[in-house]
Amino acid sequence: MEDKKIKVGITHGDYNGIGYEVILKAFEDPMIFDLCTPVVYGSQRIASHYRKLLELPQGPTQRIDSAADAKDSTLNIINVIGDDEPIEPGKQTEAAGRAARAALERAVADLKAGEIDVLVTAPINKENVQSPEFHFPGHTEYLQSALADDKNRHALMIMADDNGLRVALATIHLPLAKVASGLSTDLIAARLEEFNRSLVRDFGVHSPRIAVLALNPHAGDGGLLGKEETDIIEPAIARARSQRIQAFGPYSADGFFGAGHQRKFDGVLAMYHDQGLIPFKALCGNRGVNFTAGLPYVRTSPDHGTAFDIAGRNEADPQSLRHAIYMAIDALRNRRRHDEAFASPLPKLYQERSARND
Amino acid sequence: MEDKKIKVGITHGDYNGIGYEVILKAFEDPMIFDLCTPVVYGSQRIASHYRKLLELPQGPTQRIDSAADAKDSTLNIINVIGDDEPIEPGKQTEAAGRAARAALERAVADLKAGEIDVLVTAPINKENVQSPEFHFPGHTEYLQSALADDKNRHALMIMADDNGLRVALATIHLPLAKVASGLSTDLIAARLEEFNRSLVRDFGVHSPRIAVLALNPHAGDGGLLGKEETDIIEPAIARARSQRIQAFGPYSADGFFGAGHQRKFDGVLAMYHDQGLIPFKALCGNRGVNFTAGLPYVRTSPDHGTAFDIAGRNEADPQSLRHAIYMAIDALRNRRRHDEAFASPLPKLYQERSARND
Repeated sequence: MEDKKIKVGITHGDYNGIGYEVILKAFEDPMIFDLCTPVVYGSQRIASHYRKLLELPQGPTQRIDSAADAKDSTLNIINVIGDDEPIEPGKQTEAAGRAARAALERAVADLKAGEIDVLVTAPINKENVQSPEFHFPGHTEYLQSALADDKNRHALMIMADDNGLRVALATIHLPLAKVASGLSTDLIAARLEEFNRSLVRDFGVHSPRIAVLALNPHAGDGGLLGKEETDIIEPAIARARSQRIQAFGPYSADGFFGAGHQRKFDGVLAMYHDQGLIPFKALCGNRGVNFTAGLPYVRTSPDHGTAFDIAGRNEADPQSLRHAIYMAIDALRNRRRHDEAFASPLPKLYQERSARND
Repeated sequence: MEDKKIKVGITHGDYNGIGYEVILKAFEDPMIFDLCTPVVYGSQRIASHYRKLLELPQGPTQRIDSAADAKDSTLNIINVIGDDEPIEPGKQTEAAGRAARAALERAVADLKAGEIDVLVTAPINKENVQSPEFHFPGHTEYLQSALADDKNRHALMIMADDNGLRVALATIHLPLAKVASGLSTDLIAARLEEFNRSLVRDFGVHSPRIAVLALNPHAGDGGLLGKEETDIIEPAIARARSQRIQAFGPYSADGFFGAGHQRKFDGVLAMYHDQGLIPFKALCGNRGVNFTAGLPYVRTSPDHGTAFDIAGRNEADPQSLRHAIYMAIDALRNRRRHDEAFASPLPKLYQERSARND
């Protein structure tokens, strides 16, 4: 199965952000072509524009019409837009929003058709990408809607670094005022199940230990500072444990990271966006990758936004996108290994003996 | 003014926690007596009990009846409770709650009477300390009520380390569900004013730059993920700037710490407890100190709780309490220096010249 290179679909995101810069820089080192065959969903013209603007070295590139035509050792680009869209680095434009949507839609179709193996998404702008048909707060929610094959499973956002820190979010893009009411025992239990499954299948952790963070300061301080810990979170942990998931907590979030407890667990489930991403980014800087669990396909993205403020200035760091590509490849390999092991398990020793005894 | 040693009042907190352990360990090194004269509000009997239990070296100790009797180079202890309260390390008991209140009340009275110069508080348990008269979620709120002399000023909790990271909280002990409704432009503007004043007067920063964190993920993403940034926080920043306070933001909290921007500011104002304390503790570990600004007196405390789980086991680290004592001393000196400078400013050069010209 490892003979054929993994085809990594990469959406260009908002082309007025740093997407093209980090994509082009990530593929400057030809070593990366040994691991995968990239298919960029975007525009060859815009890629050339940024290459010239940023004075990046000319690497192997080819325009293709279909992912099936992708060749190894070159940056394959599928044009998803016409050739006259205005390029305005740092600006939020309608044209770039349309182009971001077009790339996502084409890549999702190819993923479903088996034309690419995994999906890596460069950052979009969450305002200009909206349309009557596309109305999602972020990639994760869109992919949940476009890719999920089982309505009982939900996409789970996991931030992961290369040192084994993995932080998943119970809620993602909610205003802070709506976080508490957005939590339920069912939701948290489902997140724990998905997180556990992903740690085993995507990250190759044999028997994962998951820490659950509290919602309130001091984990509610015995109810004085909120009751969600006792009413919602603890029952969810109990339910997960009854399903043989090793879930622990809820822990006061500040003390947890202050004591470095994240190093004792394979995963940390945070209740909301900033609670998980503040410590993740404070500890990992720009080495983080956003991994979407709970989908039938592997999808990752870099841990940064469009960064309009530095777009077109040759200041963007491709490290996070590069890690996102590596992590997508690793996850696909882990999944294949896991699924093969379950598809053809070793014959049971007892049966073998029994057969010999006959 | 530096001739007389600074009298540091230290409340014992919950005596079934690690309070006595960290107090005794902090004063093991006699160097600390060169800087201050400590007055512990607690119980000589309980101090002796822990010294024996933990096999700590016998240091100079004396029981006194009044802070006025405190001597240099010894751990002065004022008994605030009787001699028959049960000592049960790791247990939450009513007796220890009463003893914690008694210590605070006596220390506050002495602070007001000028018998001690600054207050350092060991951690209390927030459940057993409650009583019909004492009904506060934490030290800061109690001290605000007991010590504030100006009803228009409010206590501000600042977490500070010895590397210049200072994180203040707009709201402190609120359940997460109540944070958004607990914020207002007036509140944040008042916090910025107090933070600025404390950075100048207590921390000796000449012209402080303050970063303000956003409430919502991605700073509300242009209103898609919440409107508190535009409706509440930005007007507060504008008002502070109109008062010549160098306030900036609001910044997405995760990206802010991910990029290390805290190093570019003298202070960071977080909107709620975990938003400020998660990154503070993740970055500082156990080196942090809790500083209460906005009171007429200097008060600090260590950055940890009662730690019932390790009480009586000789595992507690006195570093944070020691830093709290040092920071209280530094702040008092900074305040005195600042206030003296303003009380007797240098005569204006122009007037001097004018006088000579006469």
